[in-house]
Amino acid sequence: MKHTIQALVENRFGVLARVSSLFSARGYNITSLAVGETADPTVSCMTIVVNAEDERILEQIKKQLNKLIDVITVNDFTHKEYIERELILIKLSADRNCEEMLTTAVKKGSIRVIEKNKNFCIIEACSERHKIEEILKELKKAEVIELVRTGKIAIGK
Amino acid sequence: MKHTIQALVENRFGVLARVSSLFSARGYNITSLAVGETADPTVSCMTIVVNAEDERILEQIKKQLNKLIDVITVNDFTHKEYIERELILIKLSADRNCEEMLTTAVKKGSIRVIEKNKNFCIIEACSERHKIEEILKELKKAEVIELVRTGKIAIGK
Repeated sequence: MKHTIQALVENRFGVLARVSSLFSARGYNITSLAVGETADPTVSCMTIVVNAEDERILEQIKKQLNKLIDVITVNDFTHKEYIERELILIKLSADRNCEEMLTTAVKKGSIRVIEKNKNFCIIEACSERHKIEEILKELKKAEVIELVRTGKIAIGK
Repeated sequence: MKHTIQALVENRFGVLARVSSLFSARGYNITSLAVGETADPTVSCMTIVVNAEDERILEQIKKQLNKLIDVITVNDFTHKEYIERELILIKLSADRNCEEMLTTAVKKGSIRVIEKNKNFCIIEACSERHKIEEILKELKKAEVIELVRTGKIAIGK
């Protein structure tokens, strides 16, 4: 099961290494991680998506996260109502498949074309994770040259 | 000076801890980091923004990144042409200032309102970093309850 955990941390060097070590020490692979500044420049916000089979181990990790001096708060969104978004940038080879696919996707409003020339086309999509997965499925008809994702961020309702 | 570095890495546990340790061992604070999956499920893409005063130390870090077994490629966007985007979610207190501010910002096309009720309003903005900073300045008139950023991602032209 995928869990979404958010931690507010002091904006200092070493914090990211300490947080990520807590997960890797238990063999937990982080699916996605987004770390950015908050309204307070001394505080960063980490949104971590982790695939945890054993909820007890995840509870341990959350407790240990809370014990780190640099961690201010830990919030597990798993059983809460929240809004999520993820951003992707994709560079597609500009062939006929790409043209067709883009026309459909732009009409649906799911993607935006940022740049287009005779060789490639760069598009962005910003949506919920499951919609991003749908967009990626549609894109399989076209040739993906490069694909970059931010990882999910979330905000409680 | 802010540098944007992108690394393709094996999607295994421990990689994030090793990469972030390389930076923290030199006292380098990562401004933002976004880690997400790529088209290949065995490979993740990390986009790292770091404030490096000393370019020589950054060169060392890049070399050491390249030496890590789990790192496939390292790309420094600093002197290259690229497209960048960052995503933010903001929860604002629903007062009169918020109303006014939103009307202007939505008209400009810089933000989208995701949810609105009598207590709060959740908005998203997806743009280049400097535009995100402008949006955040405008938002100062309203009361920000929560703010989550993905960190920057980039794709070469």
